[in-house]
Amino acid sequence: MEEKIKVGVIGATGMVGQNFVVLLKDHPWFEVVYLAASASSAGKKYRDAVAGRWHMREGIPEKVQDIVVEDASDVDRAVGKCSLVFSAVEMDKQAIIEMEAKYASKGFAVVSNNSAHRGTEDVPMVIPEINSDHLNIIPDQQRNHGWSKGFIVVKPNCSIQSYMLPIYALMKAGYTVDKMIVTTLQAVSGAGYPGPASIDMIDNIIPYISGEEEKSEVEPKKIFGRIEKGKFVPNESIKISAHCNRVPVSDGHTACVSVAFVGKKPELEEIISIWQDFTALPQELKLPSAPVPPLVYRTEIDRPQPQKDRNTGRGMTVTVGRLRRCNVFDYRFVGLHHNTIRGAAGGAILIAELLKAQGFVK
Amino acid sequence: MEEKIKVGVIGATGMVGQNFVVLLKDHPWFEVVYLAASASSAGKKYRDAVAGRWHMREGIPEKVQDIVVEDASDVDRAVGKCSLVFSAVEMDKQAIIEMEAKYASKGFAVVSNNSAHRGTEDVPMVIPEINSDHLNIIPDQQRNHGWSKGFIVVKPNCSIQSYMLPIYALMKAGYTVDKMIVTTLQAVSGAGYPGPASIDMIDNIIPYISGEEEKSEVEPKKIFGRIEKGKFVPNESIKISAHCNRVPVSDGHTACVSVAFVGKKPELEEIISIWQDFTALPQELKLPSAPVPPLVYRTEIDRPQPQKDRNTGRGMTVTVGRLRRCNVFDYRFVGLHHNTIRGAAGGAILIAELLKAQGFVK
Amino acid sequence: MEEKIKVGVIGATGMVGQNFVVLLKDHPWFEVVYLAASASSAGKKYRDAVAGRWHMREGIPEKVQDIVVEDASDVDRAVGKCSLVFSAVEMDKQAIIEMEAKYASKGFAVVSNNSAHRGTEDVPMVIPEINSDHLNIIPDQQRNHGWSKGFIVVKPNCSIQSYMLPIYALMKAGYTVDKMIVTTLQAVSGAGYPGPASIDMIDNIIPYISGEEEKSEVEPKKIFGRIEKGKFVPNESIKISAHCNRVPVSDGHTACVSVAFVGKKPELEEIISIWQDFTALPQELKLPSAPVPPLVYRTEIDRPQPQKDRNTGRGMTVTVGRLRRCNVFDYRFVGLHHNTIRGAAGGAILIAELLKAQGFVK
Amino acid sequence: MEEKIKVGVIGATGMVGQNFVVLLKDHPWFEVVYLAASASSAGKKYRDAVAGRWHMREGIPEKVQDIVVEDASDVDRAVGKCSLVFSAVEMDKQAIIEMEAKYASKGFAVVSNNSAHRGTEDVPMVIPEINSDHLNIIPDQQRNHGWSKGFIVVKPNCSIQSYMLPIYALMKAGYTVDKMIVTTLQAVSGAGYPGPASIDMIDNIIPYISGEEEKSEVEPKKIFGRIEKGKFVPNESIKISAHCNRVPVSDGHTACVSVAFVGKKPELEEIISIWQDFTALPQELKLPSAPVPPLVYRTEIDRPQPQKDRNTGRGMTVTVGRLRRCNVFDYRFVGLHHNTIRGAAGGAILIAELLKAQGFVK
Repeated sequence: MEEKIKVGVIGATGMVGQNFVVLLKDHPWFEVVYLAASASSAGKKYRDAVAGRWHMREGIPEKVQDIVVEDASDVDRAVGKCSLVFSAVEMDKQAIIEMEAKYASKGFAVVSNNSAHRGTEDVPMVIPEINSDHLNIIPDQQRNHGWSKGFIVVKPNCSIQSYMLPIYALMKAGYTVDKMIVTTLQAVSGAGYPGPASIDMIDNIIPYISGEEEKSEVEPKKIFGRIEKGKFVPNESIKISAHCNRVPVSDGHTACVSVAFVGKKPELEEIISIWQDFTALPQELKLPSAPVPPLVYRTEIDRPQPQKDRNTGRGMTVTVGRLRRCNVFDYRFVGLHHNTIRGAAGGAILIAELLKAQGFVK
Repeated sequence: MEEKIKVGVIGATGMVGQNFVVLLKDHPWFEVVYLAASASSAGKKYRDAVAGRWHMREGIPEKVQDIVVEDASDVDRAVGKCSLVFSAVEMDKQAIIEMEAKYASKGFAVVSNNSAHRGTEDVPMVIPEINSDHLNIIPDQQRNHGWSKGFIVVKPNCSIQSYMLPIYALMKAGYTVDKMIVTTLQAVSGAGYPGPASIDMIDNIIPYISGEEEKSEVEPKKIFGRIEKGKFVPNESIKISAHCNRVPVSDGHTACVSVAFVGKKPELEEIISIWQDFTALPQELKLPSAPVPPLVYRTEIDRPQPQKDRNTGRGMTVTVGRLRRCNVFDYRFVGLHHNTIRGAAGGAILIAELLKAQGFVK
Repeated sequence: MEEKIKVGVIGATGMVGQNFVVLLKDHPWFEVVYLAASASSAGKKYRDAVAGRWHMREGIPEKVQDIVVEDASDVDRAVGKCSLVFSAVEMDKQAIIEMEAKYASKGFAVVSNNSAHRGTEDVPMVIPEINSDHLNIIPDQQRNHGWSKGFIVVKPNCSIQSYMLPIYALMKAGYTVDKMIVTTLQAVSGAGYPGPASIDMIDNIIPYISGEEEKSEVEPKKIFGRIEKGKFVPNESIKISAHCNRVPVSDGHTACVSVAFVGKKPELEEIISIWQDFTALPQELKLPSAPVPPLVYRTEIDRPQPQKDRNTGRGMTVTVGRLRRCNVFDYRFVGLHHNTIRGAAGGAILIAELLKAQGFVK
Repeated sequence: MEEKIKVGVIGATGMVGQNFVVLLKDHPWFEVVYLAASASSAGKKYRDAVAGRWHMREGIPEKVQDIVVEDASDVDRAVGKCSLVFSAVEMDKQAIIEMEAKYASKGFAVVSNNSAHRGTEDVPMVIPEINSDHLNIIPDQQRNHGWSKGFIVVKPNCSIQSYMLPIYALMKAGYTVDKMIVTTLQAVSGAGYPGPASIDMIDNIIPYISGEEEKSEVEPKKIFGRIEKGKFVPNESIKISAHCNRVPVSDGHTACVSVAFVGKKPELEEIISIWQDFTALPQELKLPSAPVPPLVYRTEIDRPQPQKDRNTGRGMTVTVGRLRRCNVFDYRFVGLHHNTIRGAAGGAILIAELLKAQGFVK
């Protein structure tokens, strides 16, 4: 049996960091050997550092309980201990940009859940089923910064994951998406801990999530974009308008999507076939976290629902349903994904698996 | 002091019937003197007929507790006792169409909360602030059926009320709406009692409500339509696409709306002014249930919210917020109304008040 | 018309402070003229000081919007402006003890919602229907501290209010309570803002509330105690055991109570009569906030319920139901009250009204 | 590999029936080969019979989808097809009593989730960790009815499962329980489908569940009772008083328990040790569904919680926490279990496993 790749989690004590730790528990390729967080946690065993603020529904994995947490800002401490770090730090944007770059400069593959570097023009923002080829920018990125071995890859925002795969499947099948109007009903776990106050989520919804609509509209353009002269050129031809709502659901973001095509339009039954047949590189490479199939179409009239569909494919599958004609655009449908798995830590782990499968990480 | 108009509630034991009874409790113009329901309730005092299934948050109004419930299908029993009936019966569509017609034929003004007659070509479907002039079809309706005094007026579906007033205000100000994509987040009370099972509404949303999207798309066309040769001609120039979701909220339907205009487009600040200044006939006539103002625009970034805004104007005001440009259409906003007051019994009572103010009921 | 008594709210920007401001809006006896909070709010208009953190379901009362907030620690600023202050400060216990004493020393009647002084041996902890005579300690308190005019009165914890009135009514009728086992199901608003995270209150209950069980067991003893030599002597003869749970309810604490008497035991029907007939000094004095009746017994088998009963008597009535024999003790019942009205600001205002009616405040 | 025992589910289309089908999916000892329900489902494939009313969070197991559902009342149809039936029928009590007896008379081992036979004096009501020896009544039961091979065993009510194991562990360790006052906070799934209306469970709790308090008080006496002359003699020495509440939780019943001992009283630390060390026959026999350990004590101050602890031991473990002294009795604690697994179908399957291990079923 091949030796596992040693990995670290930076920002390991926060909500997303805890998710990484749980999802990597029995990972066949990766072994968590390094945990770092803010200076206040440094020096404590992980079990003590998260005592009283462990929010996962299962316990702290045994293997990591006694790991002594390091100070995330002390990058040199990680050198020699692991080759890839998952970044889940919670700091201000500029500080994260710099810290992640520092890890890259020291030779680490950085796979970040954070939004800080999503706009950086030589940092790939990857959904492995869609734009695995964007990893090809890594040599450019390294050259731009003078990094010999390290690099940064980021995962996009959770709010877009319910519609990116179904839309991409249609693009891949030859249809050109012109515009989309999307309304999301997002789970509270997307806000981290503590997130919304319960008094605001009992008998209520909140029709606003800070920064979420902008991300939902801008990030798809980069993901659907192309590399040109060592930089990403966004695909500006798709216009997206997003309404983002917070609803009293623990996990699982739902999106109501209306989509218009330009040029040839698919038939309804054809769309369902395209979705049902959709597969991509992560599935071909049999990446451990790649869901098979990546897309599930439910035929029941009232699905997908967060409670019943979020855990499909161990939380990595995107579930769609209710495909029907739209009075204004061409089609309407509902998409759903598990926001803390596919939409956060699980999506980042899938990127790391892709990096290993393609030789970027050893 | 003028004598009050005697009114009845048909279907008085159901959820909407109970709402009518509560909202009419101290009405300055109307007095509930007649209550009818299914044969199984007939002969019982109202208090006994609703025992164990009274779902209002306040008690049964004292004045009606001892009224003996009549059989709703025995229309003759109502003759001479009241001149207007609010219809909240729960039966199959054809049976309701016939029963409401029978009440009209016996001389009653029928104001119905039910959907059965909404498509009837000579029955006005009225939001008093918008199409009070549609009542002018009543003489035609009476002539068509040979009714001397009675007639039928209906209230539209609750799902459309969050966007009809704000859209109409812009139309009235001279702007032409071309198309709208709307996603609703609807409260469980809209489904009557018992409505959705709690196991389906804990940690969940349901992205489907039977019949609701069709109503949301079709009914506005009639309301914005015109009378021609004694029939309604729908306004087909507005295209609407609706996604309707059920969310774990008790009362208050929220709508996320994207709207495109044709021709001249209003400025953002102008729209807010139009909404803030909007007033209509019910306000001019000082109808007892007419909210002043009918529209409230909230400037907070995360409003309207069901919990905080549904009771504005005693549940009769429509609250709007988050007006912003849309990447795909022209503007986006969020609208909210109280679905069992403005959207159901309260909206019907406002119609009845309009009927009285305009001399259709005496 | 008599001039209103000028009052202040100390800690006016917090959740309880906001409740005071709303409940005092149109008070017939009191007028809010003074608002104080932490130094960071001082100098701002109240509307600006609470912008973005106004959590009431109705808006900021117009009369107070433009009041400039003072620094609560600068007690001298309040002198001459008002004669009574409601204390809703959120600081550490010792700081509150000192600040409230300072206000008293400067001549203010201090009516506190805070727990800091509840254990102070010469400070009365009052539920006006139960121990209005405890105000008689005020002259002793003033003498002990050398205060000429000011004094401190406190309101007990919200968790006990669902059972104190029903239990006291039986004691007043001549029955001696021996022991009680109580389990509370408490609303999230009891924790202030933000209180529990929504992720912890979706599809969950939390069987623990910090400090709540101790308060629930200890405070009744002082309230049922007596004054002796200028100090309170707790009634140690009643033994109480409390289990306190947080449940996903916005407002309204429910208590499941088993009670054992010593000596003569009342009949079941007699207990209901005692509750239904119960009235007390606040009702006799017609204090503006005194609910009539103070206790309501519901005969439906599944009441009281937070959603349906919390607003009885404008939130000041305690509702009881389900009285039945207990297999282990003598009787069992369920009690419910509105925790932010009767259990917090409303209860404190009732104390202030009692103080005025009895001449302690002018 | 030994051949699996063929089993049937009677009442297979209801909520509990569906739970049986899902929990038995990959059972190492049992194979579902027979499904029966009401006459209206008979003749349909199982997938069709449950279409539109499948409420499990995972899909219909493939192996049973095409089984043709039989009429449960036609007992002869089952003969020769299986040897054990799980009963989850929903009918009136007398009808169930007769139907289950008929299955027994035809030679089937009947393991029932229903309450109908719980009071029958020769039918054992079993929690396998507690009273496995009660199965010894089976020969008497068979003799009483002239049944050669078949018999009936029942599972107790879900409401008692959170406290029976922890209490029994103390009894087994030599302590004598005198009395208990218990308040339960029960999940909505305990009411079957549809169960409580969502409008009653949003921002609310209901302090009443029909029949539940009686079951919670009576059933433990039989379980802790003994066999005498072929009948069960309840243990009347333990007095229990129960308050049962419905709370907005999907799965997981919580119980707040106060307990008094007679005679020697255990130390607090000793109780925790007893719980942590507790094991019983199902664990010794390594029954497939037996959780190891059967009891988990959580040391965190705010546990157990439904959301975090219900799935411990695949839903078969009972979790306890918050052990502390009681002011009125001796100790207090909180217990929690998964009501549709340990408390319903899973508990019944554990009984069936015990029956096989002990040779009652082959």
